Amino acid sequence: MKEKPGIPKGTRDFDPLEISRREHIFDTIREVYRLHGFRPIETPAMENLSTLMGKYGEEGDRLIFRILNSGDFTAKVDDKDWKDKNAARLSAQLSEKALRYDLTVPFARYVVQHQNDITFPFKRYQIQPVWRADRPQKGRYREFFQCDADVIGSDSLVNEAEFLQIIDKVFSQLNLDVVILINNREILAGLAEYIGFADHMTDITTAIDKMDKIGLEGVGQDLIDRGLTNDAVEKLKPVLELSGTNKQKIEVLSQILASSPVGMKGIEEIQEVLDIVDVTPLQCSLELDLCLARGLNYYTGAIIEVKALEVPMGSICGGGRYDDLTRVFGLKGVSGVGISFGADRIYDVMQALSRFPDGIGTYTHLLAINFGPKERDYCLPALENLRSVGVQCEMYPEPAKVKKQMQYADKNKIPFVLMAGEEEINKGVFSFRDMQSGEQQQLMLEQISTFLLKFLD
Amino acid sequence: MKEKPGIPKGTRDFDPLEISRREHIFDTIREVYRLHGFRPIETPAMENLSTLMGKYGEEGDRLIFRILNSGDFTAKVDDKDWKDKNAARLSAQLSEKALRYDLTVPFARYVVQHQNDITFPFKRYQIQPVWRADRPQKGRYREFFQCDADVIGSDSLVNEAEFLQIIDKVFSQLNLDVVILINNREILAGLAEYIGFADHMTDITTAIDKMDKIGLEGVGQDLIDRGLTNDAVEKLKPVLELSGTNKQKIEVLSQILASSPVGMKGIEEIQEVLDIVDVTPLQCSLELDLCLARGLNYYTGAIIEVKALEVPMGSICGGGRYDDLTRVFGLKGVSGVGISFGADRIYDVMQALSRFPDGIGTYTHLLAINFGPKERDYCLPALENLRSVGVQCEMYPEPAKVKKQMQYADKNKIPFVLMAGEEEINKGVFSFRDMQSGEQQQLMLEQISTFLLKFLD
Repeated sequence: MKEKPGIPKGTRDFDPLEISRREHIFDTIREVYRLHGFRPIETPAMENLSTLMGKYGEEGDRLIFRILNSGDFTAKVDDKDWKDKNAARLSAQLSEKALRYDLTVPFARYVVQHQNDITFPFKRYQIQPVWRADRPQKGRYREFFQCDADVIGSDSLVNEAEFLQIIDKVFSQLNLDVVILINNREILAGLAEYIGFADHMTDITTAIDKMDKIGLEGVGQDLIDRGLTNDAVEKLKPVLELSGTNKQKIEVLSQILASSPVGMKGIEEIQEVLDIVDVTPLQCSLELDLCLARGLNYYTGAIIEVKALEVPMGSICGGGRYDDLTRVFGLKGVSGVGISFGADRIYDVMQALSRFPDGIGTYTHLLAINFGPKERDYCLPALENLRSVGVQCEMYPEPAKVKKQMQYADKNKIPFVLMAGEEEINKGVFSFRDMQSGEQQQLMLEQISTFLLKFLD
Repeated sequence: MKEKPGIPKGTRDFDPLEISRREHIFDTIREVYRLHGFRPIETPAMENLSTLMGKYGEEGDRLIFRILNSGDFTAKVDDKDWKDKNAARLSAQLSEKALRYDLTVPFARYVVQHQNDITFPFKRYQIQPVWRADRPQKGRYREFFQCDADVIGSDSLVNEAEFLQIIDKVFSQLNLDVVILINNREILAGLAEYIGFADHMTDITTAIDKMDKIGLEGVGQDLIDRGLTNDAVEKLKPVLELSGTNKQKIEVLSQILASSPVGMKGIEEIQEVLDIVDVTPLQCSLELDLCLARGLNYYTGAIIEVKALEVPMGSICGGGRYDDLTRVFGLKGVSGVGISFGADRIYDVMQALSRFPDGIGTYTHLLAINFGPKERDYCLPALENLRSVGVQCEMYPEPAKVKKQMQYADKNKIPFVLMAGEEEINKGVFSFRDMQSGEQQQLMLEQISTFLLKFLD
């Protein structure tokens, strides 16, 4: 029986055009990371299950793809769990390994495992796929790429400012208009103090995080449901609605949070980051957004999020400062700050705006038409010569009908075609055709080479 | 409890130096593939289990990493199999997906699934990791990269010749001495006829494939154990021992196989491939090796293998022509030919020979010493200026002791350091230090920029 070929739900094949577009995004991010002194690492697709479990909350644990143990995986299973068909208890016995769920936890594991070989501060980037057993839907995949950079082992706010520069550079090079939103968890902690609910920090950040979806009134109701008083919520609302320039917002906040040391520290930090950034001003706008909370609980200082301005599409980049990410693996007191670009969402934004540069998706620059062995052997050395200067070229493998060979060039977006018959061979030239204009002329190899080098430049 | 961090057996972390070396190999292979008109595709890490099962033999099936189904994976399991703890029967019920085992089967699946969007002949390359639950040992990993290229939908021997050119170019650019061994399955079929055991083709190729390990006598004994007669084996031995130039071997073979149509076809094919290759001669040696059989049963024509000449290390690249790879997925009569570079083994060879180019592993070109806010803000615009022309540079985030900052430059192999104190700021210059020579001079930013661009070129 023939199998009907397909791939698992939520996964994707990428064809040459898609790859070239994705590479454009990855290359841009990678290049900017390197310009700022970040170094790459890679970690295995599989981690020990124990490395991943308990790091992403209950929901996350459920969404981790587990690898079934090899060999007789039933041998060491607990008899009672087996009898009860207790999937929850069995899964840890049937699998020791799992696919990585993000790049942050493997990075924390890497830092602890290799701490003696690492020079701190450690600036690393990592561009690799991750896997989540999430319900697939538009824009959400079970295999997708993350593009992370982190500085670990440095408290300096120079790092925060550098990440803003990196974000600005990446999106400017991708030709996308964005706004960078920043906030600081310490300011949020100060606000929690200010409204008398310092012990409700998680509730407050979780609620504020939903501002985009449920609006200010919704957030207010959610906070009341979480045990805040009406008075506290009414006190918080105008702060969340603060408008104006960053300077104006900071002035108001400085009055509100004057009696909160943690809040004032957050303000000072934001101010210092803004001051450092101002030394080499950004191209995009940078906005202090008091409604920015970011759900992840491990953030402790600056938080950052980037939104595309031309297309509605959640966050396309985010990050922040965290303390003690490595503590769970036994290394304490190491502060870090990092960002992550969402390559798949950036792809969708660029696609929607037709923002991919011309020429992307062109692989072969020149196709040599195959008229038969004699003509082929006349062309082959010419192709080798062109390759030696970087021209991507190919000989059509069979002496098929010229129309078929021309169609091959067309379908594969090959811009130029080389032909040589009796006449060209006798003259020592080649017919060189521009597929777009249809223009064709007889040229010496050196002329073709010069022309193509100019074309590629 | 702190967890002791580690990674699964047979997997690896890669640090920045290793990444730069691996990238050197991948980039070289990728660039040569592109120079010859190959286009990239990528497939998901996970395939449906049914796509992979039965394609790699019994041994292969056992070595496929399976993904445990998400949710209540016990719900749909057969009661009797569960009671019996029958791992073999249960594994297919507990998992629907598996990690890809090679790039060939996913490629065949891809071609069939997307056949209406593909222009044939389809020249694709694919550089991605694969996973095998093999017993880890020196040079054998459970996660490793394959670098494949195939032409599918073309019978022309121009393709075989092109792959030899590609192999030659890759190893020449990697500065490795290699020999390419070629043979043809039809010649082996002719030899099977010649010794009267045409129906024992698989036995014969399987035995010959072990020549490296067990020698000629061992192969002879193995063939007798597989049912060949003593006479047949004695008739075969001198052919396997044939020496001399390719031309001489072909002459002898032409006499021996004169009455075997399939054998003569194999000889003609080899001859044609050699003739096409001779049009643009190779740098490495190319040897007709009658002992080359290659274990994989799907090969039907040319077979290719590459050995490093300076280090003992099995095959570092291999390939051949196959027919009907896509038949199992419902697409018949599509011939293909392909090769695969073993990046991990090539890495080991290059490492053993210290053949990685100088400068590999250098990421940051220049570190700016941080003396404090004022000096930092004087340097930051200079760094941005250098980045705009492609210099990778970073500011040390804290105003730490200069010795510590210098050590950071040393440990990270940063070749140049930038410093500016009161004096430099007043003069509008920078102190620029060559870390290797220790030379230091005061320069204008433009001078530094010019110098670094020359250095990077």
